[in-house]
Amino acid sequence: MVDVLIRHCDVLRTEGERAWVETDQDIAVEGARIQAVAAGGSLGAAAGEVIEARGMLAIPGLINTHAHVPMVLFRGLVEDVSVESWFNDYVWPLESNLTAEDVYWGALLGMAEMIESGVTCVADHYFFMDEVARAAVESGMRAHLAWAVFEHQGEAQLERTAAFIREWQGAADGRIVTWMGPHSPYTCGPDFLRLCARRAAELGVGVHLHVSETQAQVDLCLRQYGLTPPALLAETGILDGRALFAHCCYPTDADLELMAARRVGVGRAPKTYMKLSSGTADVRRLLAHGIPVGIATDGATSSNSLDILEQMRLLTLLEKYMGGDSTAFPVGQALGLAFEGGARVLGQEQDLGALQVGKLADIALVRQDAVHVWPRYDPAANLVYSSRASDVDTVLCNGKVLMRGRELRTIDKARVMREVAERLGRLNQRVPGSRIATYPV
Amino acid sequence: MVDVLIRHCDVLRTEGERAWVETDQDIAVEGARIQAVAAGGSLGAAAGEVIEARGMLAIPGLINTHAHVPMVLFRGLVEDVSVESWFNDYVWPLESNLTAEDVYWGALLGMAEMIESGVTCVADHYFFMDEVARAAVESGMRAHLAWAVFEHQGEAQLERTAAFIREWQGAADGRIVTWMGPHSPYTCGPDFLRLCARRAAELGVGVHLHVSETQAQVDLCLRQYGLTPPALLAETGILDGRALFAHCCYPTDADLELMAARRVGVGRAPKTYMKLSSGTADVRRLLAHGIPVGIATDGATSSNSLDILEQMRLLTLLEKYMGGDSTAFPVGQALGLAFEGGARVLGQEQDLGALQVGKLADIALVRQDAVHVWPRYDPAANLVYSSRASDVDTVLCNGKVLMRGRELRTIDKARVMREVAERLGRLNQRVPGSRIATYPV
Repeated sequence: MVDVLIRHCDVLRTEGERAWVETDQDIAVEGARIQAVAAGGSLGAAAGEVIEARGMLAIPGLINTHAHVPMVLFRGLVEDVSVESWFNDYVWPLESNLTAEDVYWGALLGMAEMIESGVTCVADHYFFMDEVARAAVESGMRAHLAWAVFEHQGEAQLERTAAFIREWQGAADGRIVTWMGPHSPYTCGPDFLRLCARRAAELGVGVHLHVSETQAQVDLCLRQYGLTPPALLAETGILDGRALFAHCCYPTDADLELMAARRVGVGRAPKTYMKLSSGTADVRRLLAHGIPVGIATDGATSSNSLDILEQMRLLTLLEKYMGGDSTAFPVGQALGLAFEGGARVLGQEQDLGALQVGKLADIALVRQDAVHVWPRYDPAANLVYSSRASDVDTVLCNGKVLMRGRELRTIDKARVMREVAERLGRLNQRVPGSRIATYPV
Repeated sequence: MVDVLIRHCDVLRTEGERAWVETDQDIAVEGARIQAVAAGGSLGAAAGEVIEARGMLAIPGLINTHAHVPMVLFRGLVEDVSVESWFNDYVWPLESNLTAEDVYWGALLGMAEMIESGVTCVADHYFFMDEVARAAVESGMRAHLAWAVFEHQGEAQLERTAAFIREWQGAADGRIVTWMGPHSPYTCGPDFLRLCARRAAELGVGVHLHVSETQAQVDLCLRQYGLTPPALLAETGILDGRALFAHCCYPTDADLELMAARRVGVGRAPKTYMKLSSGTADVRRLLAHGIPVGIATDGATSSNSLDILEQMRLLTLLEKYMGGDSTAFPVGQALGLAFEGGARVLGQEQDLGALQVGKLADIALVRQDAVHVWPRYDPAANLVYSSRASDVDTVLCNGKVLMRGRELRTIDKARVMREVAERLGRLNQRVPGSRIATYPV
């Protein structure tokens, strides 16, 4: 008897630019993995838990390739400001108020939002990451965790983030994967980056950092070091192992060739770029070079939500709009980024991104019987252009049911919301000059 | 005793670029109008229907200023094509399959989606409009209805649309308002437009039509008539009365001055412009001229949804992004377009767009207790950037409760979805050469 049996669902498939649906399928889950996918009804009806899913669309759990999950604590607090003011007057002063416990409750709030939105895996980049790891253990989500560090925090803090890696790598049955997290080339100079690269190599982990989010950041790097950010990262050894570039909106052609030759993936969060008017380059340029690209939400102080469906839709619409070609970036390609693309960015394409036998059982079941996704001519197009995160009915991660019928099983939402609300008064203080770092661009 | 009493809600207010919330308010509804707004608990607890709304945000019913509601019948059927192919290979051939009864069921499906999304008023532009009017009567929505007509259909068809106006103007306790609906300057020449203008003046109604959606449409008009589309409309008398321009993405400065001097409003549907890569001009140019601008969804074959919250968010993000200024188009301005802007576009600013004593009771109550809109630092920012249509809990239109606790009261959803599904096979036929019109651009 298998652990979980999903019966009579429709399974979404993607390959290249194509997407299609295999109707009336059963999915059997044993332990953390998909044991079988077969015609509806053919796998019997005996299991630890049986989920009748007729009419629902089964999709791979959505992957959030770059986030600052606990920033949901500050949602709605930083609106209609410039990029410079966003950092120096708001986010970095606000973050100086954070305690480890704040981060824990913020992480749980964000994970509740993500699970409710069908997101099963997040690459998070923040502070007090042992608290985020603890939240991941409890919530049941898959988490790629990087403890963010600035050069001005010094080598001792870098070693603290390395200790986090030693402690947590592979924890929670492999759900937790750790990365080194130097913040960015504009807050970490070459020597500090070299040290990060060395630690990452010693520890056998990748490096997750912010790269070329604005043209001004690229220009600063060129002025300071005579190199573009990706070239600087190559020169300092960061690209000797796996790297996750958050944003990378302004790559040069040489950057793209360099990235394609190394193990570099890119996480894109278009809602942030639009809201902060920080611009986004053509994703198709990255894809044309074979560079893995995934969807991301960034933090809720810039994107206001941790909703990958929304970001996927925005990315697709922007590609058509900015490219001047409505035939470009078809439905299947958008879904490919959300699933296989995200898995490749995290180096987990063997295990994630498709509902196939042997892969990890990270699965979301999406309702398709609402008026806003009716009729069901094209469930894949409906998913990209009409579905809402609220249509996600049931979520499994690593074979465990985290939400069913929109009821969360692992997070006490009322408790989390109360804990967060009680912190508002203290967190919402901005003391002039009190900030965790200074944005130099 | 009043008819409906909403207790202890938070009321959203907008003025210019400002938005704020008055917490803990009661709203009393008598007949079709708001009779009182006062401190929570001060209006007693006796009413025909009492709605306890603590923690919910009360907003004016959302206004959809340009749609083709029954096109939800074709949702997902026209993806990843060029504008020319969209018209000539898909939409216009598909529409040649439509019967009056199809339009009726499509209208009900779309109205169910809109009510569930907090939309209480729609300016619809389609065919068989007596069926859409019938759906509006039954659904309880407010509807500004224009029967679309092409010149090639001839004068008899134009008179048919005029007869529709005579029959339905002011029907359903004033919920139904009618407009003349010549399709566009690229499908209706000057003589036909003159005739439409004359009929509109005789009947005392406005004219709702497609204007300058693409630069190619503007160029064609200049080649054919030596005038921009707005100038042609002025020259043919269309602008002698009220006019609703769908899109108007490519106005010249002279167009803007002309529009500002007449009673012209504009409905904007950015999701369509992005998806079809048809481009959108700067909304702030329109606003700087004092031209009323509202949010719109267009039809579901281009925008895939009838969700005004989504379109408002896209419009706001696009204004910041394309304008290169993240401080522009603040939260209050976005909400102003959705509420007061929409009301002005329809000429109903005396009655709609704000929750004030004496205005029509078109109200949506939005839940604010979900994790994706938590914490509640800024309910207005949450509404623009984080809320989902699925957060709408209760909807009133013209004083009647159309949805409560997400249960629709006026539409039998299961029946409507079944009727639509049964039509798919027939509607999804495209016969080469069989189309209702030809896109000339």
